[in-house]
Amino acid sequence: MDFYKKALGQAKKLGGKIGLYSKVRIKTKEDLATAYTPGVAAVSQEIVKNQQNAYKLTSKGNSVAVVSDGTSVLGLGDIGPLAALPVIEGKCLLFKEFAGIDAFPLVLGTKETNEIVTTIRHIVPSFGGINLEDISAPRCFEIEEKLQDTGIPVFHDDQHGTAIVILAALANALKAVGKEMPKVKIVIFGAGAAGIATAKIISPGKLVLVDSKGPINSTRKDLNRYKKEITKRKNYLEVDSLERAFRDADVFIGVSGRGKLSAKLINLMKPRSIIFALSNPNPEIMPDRAKAAGAAIVATGRSDFPNQINNVLVFPGIFRGALDKGVRRITTEMKLATANALAGMISRPSPENILPSPLDKDVVKIIRRTILNL
Amino acid sequence: MDFYKKALGQAKKLGGKIGLYSKVRIKTKEDLATAYTPGVAAVSQEIVKNQQNAYKLTSKGNSVAVVSDGTSVLGLGDIGPLAALPVIEGKCLLFKEFAGIDAFPLVLGTKETNEIVTTIRHIVPSFGGINLEDISAPRCFEIEEKLQDTGIPVFHDDQHGTAIVILAALANALKAVGKEMPKVKIVIFGAGAAGIATAKIISPGKLVLVDSKGPINSTRKDLNRYKKEITKRKNYLEVDSLERAFRDADVFIGVSGRGKLSAKLINLMKPRSIIFALSNPNPEIMPDRAKAAGAAIVATGRSDFPNQINNVLVFPGIFRGALDKGVRRITTEMKLATANALAGMISRPSPENILPSPLDKDVVKIIRRTILNL
Repeated sequence: MDFYKKALGQAKKLGGKIGLYSKVRIKTKEDLATAYTPGVAAVSQEIVKNQQNAYKLTSKGNSVAVVSDGTSVLGLGDIGPLAALPVIEGKCLLFKEFAGIDAFPLVLGTKETNEIVTTIRHIVPSFGGINLEDISAPRCFEIEEKLQDTGIPVFHDDQHGTAIVILAALANALKAVGKEMPKVKIVIFGAGAAGIATAKIISPGKLVLVDSKGPINSTRKDLNRYKKEITKRKNYLEVDSLERAFRDADVFIGVSGRGKLSAKLINLMKPRSIIFALSNPNPEIMPDRAKAAGAAIVATGRSDFPNQINNVLVFPGIFRGALDKGVRRITTEMKLATANALAGMISRPSPENILPSPLDKDVVKIIRRTILNL
Repeated sequence: MDFYKKALGQAKKLGGKIGLYSKVRIKTKEDLATAYTPGVAAVSQEIVKNQQNAYKLTSKGNSVAVVSDGTSVLGLGDIGPLAALPVIEGKCLLFKEFAGIDAFPLVLGTKETNEIVTTIRHIVPSFGGINLEDISAPRCFEIEEKLQDTGIPVFHDDQHGTAIVILAALANALKAVGKEMPKVKIVIFGAGAAGIATAKIISPGKLVLVDSKGPINSTRKDLNRYKKEITKRKNYLEVDSLERAFRDADVFIGVSGRGKLSAKLINLMKPRSIIFALSNPNPEIMPDRAKAAGAAIVATGRSDFPNQINNVLVFPGIFRGALDKGVRRITTEMKLATANALAGMISRPSPENILPSPLDKDVVKIIRRTILNL
């Protein structure tokens, strides 16, 4: 099926994938006086008394802004806010379909880090949470960091959604091949939003992070502070060549966007190797070639192969839980618990079955409950 | 009926008056691949080719942000963004119910003029228009002025929506009492957003503008630049006392928020006087008292008396027309044509019937067509 053609037809027909609906009809003067003035003043006064009442009496408690500057759109790169809007709307659609959350697309006409931070700060009162989306690294790290004190969860899905679903998939893949996290060597290929966040969440296990210039190590002079920080982690392994990075590695995690993985590099890895070739729409290596080169388990970001590693397994549930619990931020504890809950949904992981289906509606319920129970 | 109690009950039950809906269901992998990746890339690419395509292929073309800082909420004043949210949501509900427009509530956590301007500038790509709401004067004037070059209509409804509906009501009220605009003397009571905008749109006819300190004239040292500008208008009448303002006046337009009009002042006015006591929920004078003091026509902002002057007669239609025509701003010509079209809906104005009902769904259609035909 040609999804490009189908998507374009859908957009032409619908003019956007989401819309607003009224929860009350306005047919009579009484309807108007209840939903708007003078009646609405009573609702406002309840919030004047206690600002927390806004969560219950308005849309705030169930709404998330999906904010992007359009600088790092999946497979397309820096296409700007207008061209990013269909993708951001699609994300909002998934929030609604999977978690019942009212997500509003907000694409920004600025790429300046401080302007993005200030703009988001100013819109915080309207929302119960902020999902940052498709903002390029390293700006995305700084933007998210600076917004952790807003009082509502601010979560960059390209970082943490990806890292969490990778961690869950990795736990089950290791089980399936009979290896243990503390003993494996992992190569993360790509040091953008997803690569950095994945490197931070994986522990124990030996890690090497590779960017477009090669393995990251502390002798390199071209590193931003986020890459530098990774080299200081206890489990980080400093190497100076791609060959040394891959030699005896157990796991490859490709989040490079456009990188390629050769069969030759897979040949350097240990037996029962695990290959996550997650770039979309073109994986770092196609599953059949990875298998031919000796991989025991292959996962991609695509829906047309087994083991799809897709953020939609994470963000609807983690926001549903965060909104329902009323948390002020999404903590590392919540992220690890989410990965754990997700992995736990597969009772007997096997090489072709390491994660639930992205369409499994139980995923949201289980993650939500996990967060509520923390 | 106790609308306050009813409104609060509604808010507790619904938790907000609007919600988002999905225009497409996600049940299968194919649904996901069409609405989101990889399919959505084709939609983005159409917009990369031509940015204008965003109007047709996304929600932009039918969406308006209703933006407020909560500093000047009807009857409540400066209650802040969270307490303003139910009112702003109510406005969004009216956009949807009357004009089918997807309006997003955005309440801002800043009152600083430049920060509001910059924040709105940054969110422009997401929307087809911006409706400014409940922002106190004189900041509202500067904010709106500075946003006229964004490429999408930015319209402060408390100013222009009110001024337009007043102008329409006035035209018909004058007809009903057999007077002509160029020959009447008009007192505008209240020099905030609505008062200033009304003073600017009414012409010809002699005008006096009164604020809480008395009639505005060029000898006063306490005027902001917007009040000063009004004194320079050709039809402006400088007087130095309330008595002189009201003596021989034909029309009183009360948009003071909390002011009071005495029967004594009405007694100074000419026969067949017109009283628009528009403050809400408490009019400057109650209709029965105004009639007793000699007024020929009385209008209020309330739904429980005849002649309701309500912005809902204007903003849904003017935005519907502006979005469908694809204009970059809402011009004076459009505002005057809207007032004219609205007045024209009453073929024979009488003292109890100067405007269509706020519930009349034809209003939007007629204003829309008027704007499309300009």
